[in-house]
Amino acid sequence: MKKSPLFTDLYELTMANAYYQSHKKDDYAVFELFFRKNPFGGEFSVVAGHDQVKEALDNFRFTSDELNYLKSLATFSKSDPSFFKLLEEINLDDVEIFGFPEGSIIFPHEPILQVRGPLIKVQLLESMLLNHINFGTLIATLARRSWLVAEGKTLVEFGMRRAQGPNGAMMASRSSFIGGFSASSNTLAGHLYGIPVVGTMAHSFVQSFFTIDSETLIWKGKSISHLLEKVKDEDGLHTNEGELGAFIAYSKVFPDSAILLVDTYNSLSSGIPNALRVFKILKALGHRPYGIRLDSGDMAYLSKEARRMMDKAGFPELKIFCSNELDENIILSLKEQGALIDSFGIGTKLVTAALDSSLGGVYKLVEINGKPRIKISDQPTKRTIPSCKKIYRLSGQDGMYLMDIMVNEKEKELMPFEDVMAYHPFFDQLKSIVIPSKVEPMLVPLFMNGKWLGETNLHSIRERSLREMKKMREDIIRHKNPTPYKIAVSGHLKELMNSTYQTEMGIPVLK
Amino acid sequence: MKKSPLFTDLYELTMANAYYQSHKKDDYAVFELFFRKNPFGGEFSVVAGHDQVKEALDNFRFTSDELNYLKSLATFSKSDPSFFKLLEEINLDDVEIFGFPEGSIIFPHEPILQVRGPLIKVQLLESMLLNHINFGTLIATLARRSWLVAEGKTLVEFGMRRAQGPNGAMMASRSSFIGGFSASSNTLAGHLYGIPVVGTMAHSFVQSFFTIDSETLIWKGKSISHLLEKVKDEDGLHTNEGELGAFIAYSKVFPDSAILLVDTYNSLSSGIPNALRVFKILKALGHRPYGIRLDSGDMAYLSKEARRMMDKAGFPELKIFCSNELDENIILSLKEQGALIDSFGIGTKLVTAALDSSLGGVYKLVEINGKPRIKISDQPTKRTIPSCKKIYRLSGQDGMYLMDIMVNEKEKELMPFEDVMAYHPFFDQLKSIVIPSKVEPMLVPLFMNGKWLGETNLHSIRERSLREMKKMREDIIRHKNPTPYKIAVSGHLKELMNSTYQTEMGIPVLK
Repeated sequence: MKKSPLFTDLYELTMANAYYQSHKKDDYAVFELFFRKNPFGGEFSVVAGHDQVKEALDNFRFTSDELNYLKSLATFSKSDPSFFKLLEEINLDDVEIFGFPEGSIIFPHEPILQVRGPLIKVQLLESMLLNHINFGTLIATLARRSWLVAEGKTLVEFGMRRAQGPNGAMMASRSSFIGGFSASSNTLAGHLYGIPVVGTMAHSFVQSFFTIDSETLIWKGKSISHLLEKVKDEDGLHTNEGELGAFIAYSKVFPDSAILLVDTYNSLSSGIPNALRVFKILKALGHRPYGIRLDSGDMAYLSKEARRMMDKAGFPELKIFCSNELDENIILSLKEQGALIDSFGIGTKLVTAALDSSLGGVYKLVEINGKPRIKISDQPTKRTIPSCKKIYRLSGQDGMYLMDIMVNEKEKELMPFEDVMAYHPFFDQLKSIVIPSKVEPMLVPLFMNGKWLGETNLHSIRERSLREMKKMREDIIRHKNPTPYKIAVSGHLKELMNSTYQTEMGIPVLK
Repeated sequence: MKKSPLFTDLYELTMANAYYQSHKKDDYAVFELFFRKNPFGGEFSVVAGHDQVKEALDNFRFTSDELNYLKSLATFSKSDPSFFKLLEEINLDDVEIFGFPEGSIIFPHEPILQVRGPLIKVQLLESMLLNHINFGTLIATLARRSWLVAEGKTLVEFGMRRAQGPNGAMMASRSSFIGGFSASSNTLAGHLYGIPVVGTMAHSFVQSFFTIDSETLIWKGKSISHLLEKVKDEDGLHTNEGELGAFIAYSKVFPDSAILLVDTYNSLSSGIPNALRVFKILKALGHRPYGIRLDSGDMAYLSKEARRMMDKAGFPELKIFCSNELDENIILSLKEQGALIDSFGIGTKLVTAALDSSLGGVYKLVEINGKPRIKISDQPTKRTIPSCKKIYRLSGQDGMYLMDIMVNEKEKELMPFEDVMAYHPFFDQLKSIVIPSKVEPMLVPLFMNGKWLGETNLHSIRERSLREMKKMREDIIRHKNPTPYKIAVSGHLKELMNSTYQTEMGIPVLK
């Protein structure tokens, strides 16, 4: 799907028209894209989706075909033709986007993106930015949570077949790599993003073999039928012949990397014995077989049985790869049961974020022509925090992250070892004095003068993100009942919140 | 995202290589794409996703860049170069795809698609077909469920901002239109698919106004300040001035279509009174105002209050548009509470299918070189139904759908008024004699000789789908505890299931 500025909710365009007619199009606006609640019951999130944003910004031009479509809509039938002229000539040269670098750990109410520029332009970007950042961040966060519970085991993403459309698959592959996954089955993601790709075999491959024909037993020009007879005699089992033939045929092509899928008929009585026969043949021919994949049944039990059978057959180095509707909770449970699994393949529940299928990111106007703006809600924690901000991440004496603090953009720079009063953004009584050992400004320029400035090397993004993770206190990132990370505002910002609210709302009179 | 045959799980390519090396690439295979369980606790599904499939089939060519990428992978480092030559020259001229027409009502175990052709080719299509059909069908089904509970109220999709990536949004717009939605906010979907688009305004538009400047009060060259004073005097309320200014500015541009968003500050004390002021001005100027949008708070209460206030002000014809984390259950609840809503805007929970974020479609080999194949599972209902099939939909004397029956492709045609013995596919005792009044073959050719043959007119697809719905018995499509629709197999197919199973599995010996 080619990127197009028509990828937007229609109301962005009707508002654009109204801004234009009201001579407000060049009002200088600041929007912030943020969420109010971490997904999955956690207390952190991981920013992703920047590649899609970059591509959309790079292609933000209306074609004449697209403009003709807009002109044809009843909604715009009475619009001044100069509005379409304006759209035709629109460019983003005077739009500036700041934000947390991709892969950053981020928390509620912090601007993932801060978008500044002429009102008409920054409004038109809303739907696209939300779409890309909401989904990217959702999946990177979920992947990071699996990465935490997997504690060093290899994680592979292979959700393409049930992902929410092609981009659902592509963005999930990329975001889960940022989150900590090691590889994907998505070959196009390998090609376009440089993510390592892995693949095993499907049941259909096994099913397509009925038996072992004589040709299958020719290996590099020589018959291996004597080897086959020997390994069959060793176990004396009656297994599925088609499956055995399939394993031999596949292993001939991938003798050092084949991961044999053992559950087409029965993992314990046919699949694993057949795989071991082939591994013995491979070993006799000088190869180092790789491993097996379990794809159904009780993974805790089967992995322990498989390990026992493989160890007994002299293959302690063989890997066990598991894939069967896994998610972070099942990985945790398998660990508790002592499952012996080397690598987890995670698909559907990761790429569709089954536990929490969307991130509630919003895009709110926080300042216009230098004046702070607020969106009111009956729920105090759903109010927006007005004005264009800077965000600092403060570290304590132990080097760990202590809190993030938001200040108005015009406030003076925070400095290490200088004390600052930090207020809870919504509960006025809660405050603390912080003397940070380290102060990091979190918003960096991502887009300026029509050029993307953010990091684009996916491997660098992933490494930086995993490095940041080491400075997160364990109680904040633990799986069960994590502690919320502290997000604070400065005294000045706190006052601005209160005064802006009073200006817009006054005090309601109930009678 | 341009379509590419690399949009696949790597194992399709490793298997392709192994099929090729095993001289099996031209084995004639039949795969069927089906699911085992309807989503959302329902008893029917609605097929969608064909446009993506068509586009992928039309673009199924490996570029040299893509082939070089594959050659660079360690997995393929020792592969015969002729394999890449094969991929370079691959085309789909000898692949045939049959399936239910897009928009069809479909049930578990029925082939949404039946893909026939050389093994290597039909295997390579697996991941792509699953991705497109799984998500398309998921959303069309969910949309149809909302359409059923909305009982004639207008449904508008506007989930783009939280959809799972750009295609997640595009496919959701298209599929929900097939499902019965009337419009979308997704402007690109309007342009590319011809779906009607609608748009209102965002909170940011309202927030961008602080007050009412004199220019805002000039309407077609004349001041409307006297009208404004008059309508203010009439209600005597203190409302938010910026909001009032925003409503006037917007309505000047869209005097006959503006849907004013009333909850930026407070719906009852500011938003609705301000909207009514502007509607009165519009009326005085000879326009017919359209309606309001409620976007937060208690929709049942607010819609009734809004209706009362609008009726009292002399606007019984004004529409109430609602949008606030809606789904089918909330629509049902609002109906029960007597909410007075004309149009529902549904976003996140529809487009991400929050209740059930994936359809479990699978792609299974059912026949190879004329021989039936089966995938075994410990759970009998998870076994595949072997052999290439035909599907008939049988109607009863009342014209309503009675059951679908699957027969082997080589069985004679079923005829109306001829009795047929219908077996439950998994429970052998369950059978019935059916004398259908009408017999409809359900599988139609969708792709042959490299050309897409399926219907591509989205409006025709939608109309046909909604027509089919009228022949579904009420107890099967009802929201709560629906009755399963009958899916049967012929006696011949039943025998084939049993004999194929015995051939592959025998009888296990436990000791």
